[in-house]
Amino acid sequence: MAARALGVDLGGTNARAAVVDRDSGEIVASHKEPHRDRSPAAVVETVAHAVAAALEGAGDAARTFGRVGVGVAGQCLGRTGVVLNAPNLGWRDVPLGELLEERLGAKVRIANDLSAAAWGERRFGAARGVDDAVLVFVGSGVGSGLILGGRLHDGHRGVAGELGHVKVRPSRASTAPRRCGCGELGCLEAYTSGMNLAARVREELAAGASSRLGALLQGDLSRLSASVIDEACVQGDPYACALWEEVADLLGNAIASVVTLLNPARVILGGGVLLGCPDLRRRVDEVFQARVSRSALVGLTLERAFLGDDAGVIGAALLE
Amino acid sequence: MAARALGVDLGGTNARAAVVDRDSGEIVASHKEPHRDRSPAAVVETVAHAVAAALEGAGDAARTFGRVGVGVAGQCLGRTGVVLNAPNLGWRDVPLGELLEERLGAKVRIANDLSAAAWGERRFGAARGVDDAVLVFVGSGVGSGLILGGRLHDGHRGVAGELGHVKVRPSRASTAPRRCGCGELGCLEAYTSGMNLAARVREELAAGASSRLGALLQGDLSRLSASVIDEACVQGDPYACALWEEVADLLGNAIASVVTLLNPARVILGGGVLLGCPDLRRRVDEVFQARVSRSALVGLTLERAFLGDDAGVIGAALLE
Repeated sequence: MAARALGVDLGGTNARAAVVDRDSGEIVASHKEPHRDRSPAAVVETVAHAVAAALEGAGDAARTFGRVGVGVAGQCLGRTGVVLNAPNLGWRDVPLGELLEERLGAKVRIANDLSAAAWGERRFGAARGVDDAVLVFVGSGVGSGLILGGRLHDGHRGVAGELGHVKVRPSRASTAPRRCGCGELGCLEAYTSGMNLAARVREELAAGASSRLGALLQGDLSRLSASVIDEACVQGDPYACALWEEVADLLGNAIASVVTLLNPARVILGGGVLLGCPDLRRRVDEVFQARVSRSALVGLTLERAFLGDDAGVIGAALLE
Repeated sequence: MAARALGVDLGGTNARAAVVDRDSGEIVASHKEPHRDRSPAAVVETVAHAVAAALEGAGDAARTFGRVGVGVAGQCLGRTGVVLNAPNLGWRDVPLGELLEERLGAKVRIANDLSAAAWGERRFGAARGVDDAVLVFVGSGVGSGLILGGRLHDGHRGVAGELGHVKVRPSRASTAPRRCGCGELGCLEAYTSGMNLAARVREELAAGASSRLGALLQGDLSRLSASVIDEACVQGDPYACALWEEVADLLGNAIASVVTLLNPARVILGGGVLLGCPDLRRRVDEVFQARVSRSALVGLTLERAFLGDDAGVIGAALLE
């Protein structure tokens, strides 16, 4: 097998390609390219450009890569390469694998970006050498990547790990369920992702909710983020504390359920909402501890994601 | 590999041993032996007796079996053979594998009974040839068995699949959470297993709840079962219907969450509560359809368990 592998991390804003050393997991060279427009044809060109630039940077421009791994921020039918639903790209049912194979002249393996990130963490990050690990990501989106029995579990059609689209019942469920970017109602992501949290808080403040958040942001609600909510909560703002209680309840319960069901050796926490909000994280841990089955706690460790934004592109390159 | 394998299904009432044909999955001979007492030493003797009788029945008494698979109704640390918690046997932390290896003079592989049953269904039943399948069992207990990527997933320590011990919030959650047989509060099993349902209905009727159930049972509440509740519900009894709505909500939601997370090709339904209660089953299907992620429904089929009570002993014999 070649000593270098080629991976792509395809998000809603950029495509990043990287040449990765198989033995060390190090990124030899990478190139990030913003999307000019998000049509499939334009995105395929952007990916091709990022790939060419990464190869150039690695001194590999003349080398043939038989296979490219691509992690996509969306629901993907793994083996067929079809992206079912990628809200940040505005895509539904795009045959990305086929389009990229044609353009790149190489075999393409498509996976969800969090599956790819979990695989990266398993190979060279926070789950190195661990056969059963779950990556839980709460950032702009919410999802998970499952490493089970030493392999990436992406399921029958490739959409396993969609923890963000498990349906939940918030404690303040008197209101109608919120609609998720995927089009469905009541998804965990609709209540806990950074984007959805910010949108909800803006709605509630506009509707007259009283909170210290307005003052903290000096009235500029466009700067609202999960970490600002966390700060307001630490300062004792009742609105922010009630919101964090609800969000922590949903996240702690979701992680506890996954651990009880799958009995992993490690849970890897990633994403700005989980990693950038210490008060929320403390509350999530409390709910998790209260609701996980004791028997699944034996031998379990929770760790912060180690590879950060590199996990996706490293994992994509090394996908099996 | 020998053409025959030896399996044991160890429940709270009986131990059943069977000699199984590896190629056809057929039970060549089996023997069921009731527990005289449930101490580990007595149960080991009972298992040894059942094994000897099954071997005798198969004409294999003189043959050496290098390995025996045992499915246990309880939470088991798979590879170490320790039974953490088996409420129906009254066991905690029993080193069953070690005790049986000593008594039988053979290697012993311990697994949860539903993991064993899922493996049996995968090899010769409702999930034959399917690489990603989940067995959901709702009977006297509640649990699941996970076949992922063509292998039994029993997790880091062997306790994966404990769907019955995922914590839930019933819609009538104003009351305190119910205690489960495992000792924890709010487990799915505490609200939906046949035993727990019967106990709860008896409590509520004793506390004055009005229901047709008393008349249907001619006052003999010892005959209360899930199928009687189902019948009362079909007859329009408001108490039974409200109960079924709550139970269906919990079960439909749990199955939908597992499917969204794991993207199996097949869900196998087993146990008397799911299979013997048509009205409940219809309600569970409705909730499931409303709450599962659309993307995980593609290519999914739900089937009734095929091997019935034989699944556990066949699967145990053939465990890898």
